[in-house]
Amino acid sequence: MKIAVIGCGRWGSFIAWYLDKIGNEVTLYGRETSEKMKNFLENRKNNFLELPKSISLTTNINDIFDKDLIIISVGTQSLRDLLNENRVLFKETNIPIILCMKGIEIKTGFTPTRIVKDILGENYSCGAWIGPGHVQDFTNGIPNCMVIDSDDRELVKKLVDSFSSNLIRFYYGTNLLGNEIGAASKNVIGIAAGMLDGFNLSSLKGALMSRGTREIARLIEKMGGDKSCAYGLCHLGDYEATVFSEFSNNRKFGEKFVKGESFEKLAEGYFTTKALMDLSEKYDVELPITNAVYEIIYNKKDPKEILDNLFKRSIKMEF
Amino acid sequence: MKIAVIGCGRWGSFIAWYLDKIGNEVTLYGRETSEKMKNFLENRKNNFLELPKSISLTTNINDIFDKDLIIISVGTQSLRDLLNENRVLFKETNIPIILCMKGIEIKTGFTPTRIVKDILGENYSCGAWIGPGHVQDFTNGIPNCMVIDSDDRELVKKLVDSFSSNLIRFYYGTNLLGNEIGAASKNVIGIAAGMLDGFNLSSLKGALMSRGTREIARLIEKMGGDKSCAYGLCHLGDYEATVFSEFSNNRKFGEKFVKGESFEKLAEGYFTTKALMDLSEKYDVELPITNAVYEIIYNKKDPKEILDNLFKRSIKMEF
Repeated sequence: MKIAVIGCGRWGSFIAWYLDKIGNEVTLYGRETSEKMKNFLENRKNNFLELPKSISLTTNINDIFDKDLIIISVGTQSLRDLLNENRVLFKETNIPIILCMKGIEIKTGFTPTRIVKDILGENYSCGAWIGPGHVQDFTNGIPNCMVIDSDDRELVKKLVDSFSSNLIRFYYGTNLLGNEIGAASKNVIGIAAGMLDGFNLSSLKGALMSRGTREIARLIEKMGGDKSCAYGLCHLGDYEATVFSEFSNNRKFGEKFVKGESFEKLAEGYFTTKALMDLSEKYDVELPITNAVYEIIYNKKDPKEILDNLFKRSIKMEF
Repeated sequence: MKIAVIGCGRWGSFIAWYLDKIGNEVTLYGRETSEKMKNFLENRKNNFLELPKSISLTTNINDIFDKDLIIISVGTQSLRDLLNENRVLFKETNIPIILCMKGIEIKTGFTPTRIVKDILGENYSCGAWIGPGHVQDFTNGIPNCMVIDSDDRELVKKLVDSFSSNLIRFYYGTNLLGNEIGAASKNVIGIAAGMLDGFNLSSLKGALMSRGTREIARLIEKMGGDKSCAYGLCHLGDYEATVFSEFSNNRKFGEKFVKGESFEKLAEGYFTTKALMDLSEKYDVELPITNAVYEIIYNKKDPKEILDNLFKRSIKMEF
């Protein structure tokens, strides 16, 4: 398959590396002003991997519109602008889009594929590639399971069958909304996990997993999705990589935040927390963990007090 | 409350220590021949804690039948014999029993509370104290959430209200069968997790959690319990302590088993694996992870091959 990848960050460059490795013809696009792209153009390396010569590198967006598939790996909050800037080319070429990002647009509450449909039309073929895995593990040959989901079932079948390997075992997703909400929200649970680590309360991550899955299942159900996604690869299946892994950006962000340490940049879950709070109100569903994270990182409430209250809620019934 | 604890292993002695600490009058019973009991009688210590003078130690079973509550912490496979030996005293005194063990009796497929009812009668008041937590963490002041469940709702209310502290936050259990099956089976998932660790496949623990909860939910449902228990503190809520913790006996057993290293004694999950396989047949429910563990530890199949197959099953649909 001829595939273009937009976004040359850690994950975008890994996707290019992986799809090349399993036999596709891959072009990686990054903006001319991107430091990461300049780096790849100079020595084809970042801290995680080296891109083989077989991958074409380009800073010209026009180079990607003759492919069979376009994969986008940028921050969720930047997706709308990217699509708007290239709206005409997308509409003319009609190339299917796969989104590799885990977030919700703050100003609309939209999932990534809904942003695509909002700009390019309801029938535009697009999907999501989600699930657990860290670039650091994959490049060390450690395998994982992931999910591809889309309303375009032919696209799902084609990509799952063609992208599966011994390194990544893909599953057919069966509920796009549930999978996208599950994938985005696991970052918020990851921040909460980091906060527990920061207070030497890591043992409460068991209770966090039990209650985190439940609150996200409730939200997905209220939004009209399949709540079992909260217990699938996109969410619970991503907890190993998010709630426990040293590599998790969101977990690290939560830990550093409560310890008062500085962090290079805001984790994706920072934005998702705000977006989930809006959804919580819109769909009238209680999200106690998300709310706790929100109170700590947005309203600067005392984290220890908020976390203590979270696990000592007056509700004593488990279900 | 005047409370007797039967069983002076790691967990039984911790329970005595904890209940004394929060203001109960505690008697700890161990057999005269028990090395652990001899140790306590000599210096009141084990590797994890020191029992204060306020705790009475006894090797005379008659000493425990004037209490308000008897807590039993022995291996599930030994429970029937213990109850049978003291059947007359239990029936005469009718003291409520709380069971602190996570297992299923191999020869009957019974949960611990069902063994009590089998021997002491259907109306005998008994319950289960389950959920996450390692003695090593608790004695270091690291808190956790646990569950007490029983068909005797007054007993549940009384114990949850009286046992809760800043160290252990108790919740009212709402489905005894689901909670006992969930608690027992998490040890099997813990063995599988250790096996993944042993092969440097720890990243698959995300997928293991997602699929483990689902197979146990299916079993609980088929047995007539509330499947949401698989996602509650008794099972998923115990994964931090079982699937990830260095302290987990079952995880360590799985890791050592696939590495061919020797282990001191069989983990409780070893027996539960066999019991779950019988339940799987009796209730006609597929348990792929349990089955994989069974094939490896009972039938000595090649662990790498079995685990590879587990995560590459021909079923590609997530749900």
